[in-house]
Amino acid sequence: MTPEQFRAHAHHLVDWMADYLGDVATLRVTPSAAPGDVRRELPADPPLAGESFERLFADFQRIIMPGMTHWNHPGWFGYFPANHSPPSILAEMITATLGAQCMSWQTSPAATELEQVVMRWLGTMLELPSAFTGVIQDTASTATLVALLSARERAGGGDGAVVYASEERHSSVDKAVKLAGFASDALRLVPTDAAFALRPDALHGMLTADTAAGRRPACIVATVGTTSSTAVDPLAEIAPLAAKHGAWLHVDAAYAGSAAILPERRWILEGVAGADSLVVNPHKWLFTNFDCSAYFVRDVPALLATFSADPAYLRTRHDADVANFRDWGIQLGRRFRALKLWWVIRSYGVDGLRALLRKHIALAAEFRASVEADGRFEVPAPSPFGLVCFRLRAEAGRDEDADPRNRALLDAVNADGRVFLSGTVLGGRFTLRLAVGQLATERTHVELAWNLVRAAADPA
Amino acid sequence: MTPEQFRAHAHHLVDWMADYLGDVATLRVTPSAAPGDVRRELPADPPLAGESFERLFADFQRIIMPGMTHWNHPGWFGYFPANHSPPSILAEMITATLGAQCMSWQTSPAATELEQVVMRWLGTMLELPSAFTGVIQDTASTATLVALLSARERAGGGDGAVVYASEERHSSVDKAVKLAGFASDALRLVPTDAAFALRPDALHGMLTADTAAGRRPACIVATVGTTSSTAVDPLAEIAPLAAKHGAWLHVDAAYAGSAAILPERRWILEGVAGADSLVVNPHKWLFTNFDCSAYFVRDVPALLATFSADPAYLRTRHDADVANFRDWGIQLGRRFRALKLWWVIRSYGVDGLRALLRKHIALAAEFRASVEADGRFEVPAPSPFGLVCFRLRAEAGRDEDADPRNRALLDAVNADGRVFLSGTVLGGRFTLRLAVGQLATERTHVELAWNLVRAAADPA
Repeated sequence: MTPEQFRAHAHHLVDWMADYLGDVATLRVTPSAAPGDVRRELPADPPLAGESFERLFADFQRIIMPGMTHWNHPGWFGYFPANHSPPSILAEMITATLGAQCMSWQTSPAATELEQVVMRWLGTMLELPSAFTGVIQDTASTATLVALLSARERAGGGDGAVVYASEERHSSVDKAVKLAGFASDALRLVPTDAAFALRPDALHGMLTADTAAGRRPACIVATVGTTSSTAVDPLAEIAPLAAKHGAWLHVDAAYAGSAAILPERRWILEGVAGADSLVVNPHKWLFTNFDCSAYFVRDVPALLATFSADPAYLRTRHDADVANFRDWGIQLGRRFRALKLWWVIRSYGVDGLRALLRKHIALAAEFRASVEADGRFEVPAPSPFGLVCFRLRAEAGRDEDADPRNRALLDAVNADGRVFLSGTVLGGRFTLRLAVGQLATERTHVELAWNLVRAAADPA
Repeated sequence: MTPEQFRAHAHHLVDWMADYLGDVATLRVTPSAAPGDVRRELPADPPLAGESFERLFADFQRIIMPGMTHWNHPGWFGYFPANHSPPSILAEMITATLGAQCMSWQTSPAATELEQVVMRWLGTMLELPSAFTGVIQDTASTATLVALLSARERAGGGDGAVVYASEERHSSVDKAVKLAGFASDALRLVPTDAAFALRPDALHGMLTADTAAGRRPACIVATVGTTSSTAVDPLAEIAPLAAKHGAWLHVDAAYAGSAAILPERRWILEGVAGADSLVVNPHKWLFTNFDCSAYFVRDVPALLATFSADPAYLRTRHDADVANFRDWGIQLGRRFRALKLWWVIRSYGVDGLRALLRKHIALAAEFRASVEADGRFEVPAPSPFGLVCFRLRAEAGRDEDADPRNRALLDAVNADGRVFLSGTVLGGRFTLRLAVGQLATERTHVELAWNLVRAAADPA
């Protein structure tokens, strides 16, 4: 495919892309495909001869598209958003075209320096203390593993070390504790309060007991915006405990951290000055294509001591003067990810981004009000961001029916195809989650979700 | 930015993209930017108000482009290639537009099933035994860490465990051994032969001695195509040793593995049936945009036992029947990366890909012949793929001058701006590396590189 053939095909594709962005609301959010449906349409062996773009694109439309889940559908309310935006997509087109490998300053000076600048911008937007330095990781799972590994190294190894996180922490914490090689009993689950936030008094007790028993507190993972219910662990009370016990404090604000760009939500990061690291995902709720996970760290030398490698074949004459981001995480190879974050922040401006987040929070509040006004439902957790947790109340004496009824409700709502919600278990009970966070989501989509929920809950 | 505004901007961008692909040969491969040049042009604070696409794009062209290194320049001969191709870029445009999060089957059924199929295609192209199952990781660093973690778990932990790799292994092995929490003395460096390949007799001796001393061989990392010189560790001799000692055998074929799609190079994977895992990077030498690292594993249950997590908020009704690739590696979130590999394989066909690799290997051989015909140079290693290692010979009695002269030679060649080579240390001496592997590289570019080398080496 010559550059001129590419030009023609890419123009063709752009029309499809723009149509898709305009029409995605008319598609089912999730496909009706059953396991194996897509695979069955694909040949078992690769072709020996090359094929035309027309055939590739036709097969994409015929085989792949009917099996795609549309994360940027305005009726997407599942999990947390993985949103994007037109300026982010435009930047990804450039990133793909340049195909730069941003492992070292020398291998892409502009990419390295742009990453430094936009991460400082993001730090400013979040009002982080200037002691934090930012680097883009791929995912929060990776960022949390990076934090755990840094904590392990600072603690002088995993033996006898313990890690603390709330009962509502993300599964990536458990995974990182295991992958980092801590002992199988090293993860302490701290009880939560009625709002599902970590209880500092309980943490304090566990730290004291562990220390007395000769265990070494290596890391505390606090969550700002838990996955099940967006509970906010109180950093201002946790940070002094981390300092007292010499534990690395990592803040998992993957989803909710974006909300800290709102002055009225900045309280969620109160106390972050006492943290060692923080992860916020612009690819969740800041309109930047996955992958773009912002990792902020206070002790850069500790990070470098854990992750740097210096083989002869990577050395350059500038290494002493520059940041080589290959030494700031697990991967050597790195995509040029700063470009999209730069374009998103500039395209919307900080005020524009704030307006979008406020709209989502307001829509979630409206949905919550509708649910609360309907006596059949209960709302088991606060909704400080774009997520509302809700469920049908248990009928008197029929506690055991509540979970199946709520699961059936979720399935019925999703079967419609115009919206998608996901579920969790909160306080031991199956609970539905509606997370508002897509760029195209408007009041009508949230109202549709509520009408579908209300109708599906109707026993008639 | 509305979908219609996006359409206009994207069409504008496509023309820039096609022009770039056509004109990249006219740019300097590496920029003349000094550290700080790009950063200085960027404002310290993010804008409050949104800005137009025209401003974003103008600043990209004015500030970023002059600071970019052009990895897909036909004069790119540094490191290993990180190549791409028009069909791959087109696929990335779709991936960015869909913005799908491919963590679970349910969150993108077609993406999951396409990944299964194209990884089987790639396995077929590499003639891997059917016992291997493939999954796309982001980088070989991650894939090797995944292998080391799997090995650690299978060995029942890192205590007393040892890992073997040749003196010429990639730095990601050292990094993975450290990150996986093996002891600081756990990595055994196996001596290499005159061709820089691991010596099985030496490995055998070390395994025997370690076992006698009560250490547990947990993993052997064999390299097919080392970074410094593309040496090929003999899998057929290593595999029986791994089997005898119960060690996980991981094969790092990140660069050279692509060559195994050539019948005349398939010998490099002879013995792979005895391996536990293998990594090959289509983003290095198979014209697929970074990131796309193909990880093949034999014991899927061992992989899942190491990496799976099953929190309530991720459970779906299909989990028992499908592959949820979030459980096949470190990251939870995953981009839709199978699409580009599908389009690359179909667009070129296996025969087309073979023709491209053969062209690169032939061009490298021509360059090597030129170097060998010039008495001032020596060629210290075989060149079975696209890489040629070479250096000025030490002058009689002036051994200590050889490294500075070769470093100066590399700098002089790169300063021209039309080509880029990188260096390494091989057999204790600084050595230049010329790696042919970009889609657009033709004989003229390799001849230009040789003419620049020859001229710069001329003392006159």
